Amino acid sequence: MKATQHFTLDDILTMEQRSRANFINGLSGYKSANLIGTQNASGQTNLAIVSSVVHIGAHPPLLGMIMRPHTVRRDTLQNIKSGGNYTINAVSTSFFKQAHQTSARYDESEFAATGLTPWYSDAVRAPYVDESPLKIGLSLEQITPLACNNTELVIGRVTEVFIDDAAVEDDGNIAISQLALATISGLDTYHSAKLMARMEYAKPDLPPRTKQ
Amino acid sequence: MKATQHFTLDDILTMEQRSRANFINGLSGYKSANLIGTQNASGQTNLAIVSSVVHIGAHPPLLGMIMRPHTVRRDTLQNIKSGGNYTINAVSTSFFKQAHQTSARYDESEFAATGLTPWYSDAVRAPYVDESPLKIGLSLEQITPLACNNTELVIGRVTEVFIDDAAVEDDGNIAISQLALATISGLDTYHSAKLMARMEYAKPDLPPRTKQ
Repeated sequence: MKATQHFTLDDILTMEQRSRANFINGLSGYKSANLIGTQNASGQTNLAIVSSVVHIGAHPPLLGMIMRPHTVRRDTLQNIKSGGNYTINAVSTSFFKQAHQTSARYDESEFAATGLTPWYSDAVRAPYVDESPLKIGLSLEQITPLACNNTELVIGRVTEVFIDDAAVEDDGNIAISQLALATISGLDTYHSAKLMARMEYAKPDLPPRTKQ
Repeated sequence: MKATQHFTLDDILTMEQRSRANFINGLSGYKSANLIGTQNASGQTNLAIVSSVVHIGAHPPLLGMIMRPHTVRRDTLQNIKSGGNYTINAVSTSFFKQAHQTSARYDESEFAATGLTPWYSDAVRAPYVDESPLKIGLSLEQITPLACNNTELVIGRVTEVFIDDAAVEDDGNIAISQLALATISGLDTYHSAKLMARMEYAKPDLPPRTKQ
């Protein structure tokens, strides 16, 4: 018989602060690992790892992320607000340690500090991470303050995408297992992933079917 | 030299609708796979798979998810709005096919239709998925409409957590690789994950270090 631990709200609220942060950040399971590339008006670049990128909609193409206005990542948020452009760069298993290191409080650009390579397209005034196999350019769509805890939901409109290695299938699906992306759990734990199955559209009169 | 595909905004906007949905849903990388458990005033249960659960904050403990008001998942949203309680149940690799099947348009409860087992705690008036190794009970905190595309950000406050297999470490970290959770990419692709490393808190004067 499996053992199960039960945590009540009281248990959670009385946890030591850092333990609670670890615990609650772990509840959302496997999360995407992305580096957000921005620059300020003087062209100083900034790179910040986030694990909260979330699909908002496909038409128009929109991605969101949760940002804390008053933490180490405020450079990113200020740059997005003032410049209107930013990039989302998927972190692969080959450079996850450098990606994690961008969370340190640097005065210089995190590109210079970590050795990751800035790269620019013609269309977006923000740096991409050259090492990333999935690079997304965005323009700021809206910032929604969340009254419950003073975080902000930053929503961007996708303006261009660069994908390595012909990972896009005929029906538009991105075969991300070909890209060797990392996935994060909690605040600091990194994983690789392995394809199990792509499933057919579910119908009530048919059992679950894998795509052939 | 690696080949890179470039998709402009025009390319994206002129994709066939289903292809664009596949493509844009793939941009957010690896996502958590969760089943949302709810019930209506008569006690009829509902189970819906979502891949948009996102960490909002640890204190108070808050989780968000993006919901489309006018899709197959409206039962879930209506039940949350009327009842105020719901559960988030992490999907493990052993039952991801049944979890995916909850996205079919059933008239009956998705529990009955898929064979997953409802289970109730004393504290939350919504069904948990007994098979899930990570079960979270929530009370509705706020629903924030997103003007950009008429979706809604549903935020819940964590009221209790059940975790199998002693996966909680001394510092509160959840060792989710012990739970064999599935992770989703795009609309329909399921993966397993494997631990690479847990990283130390990043500091500007130290190189990236893995936790021992």
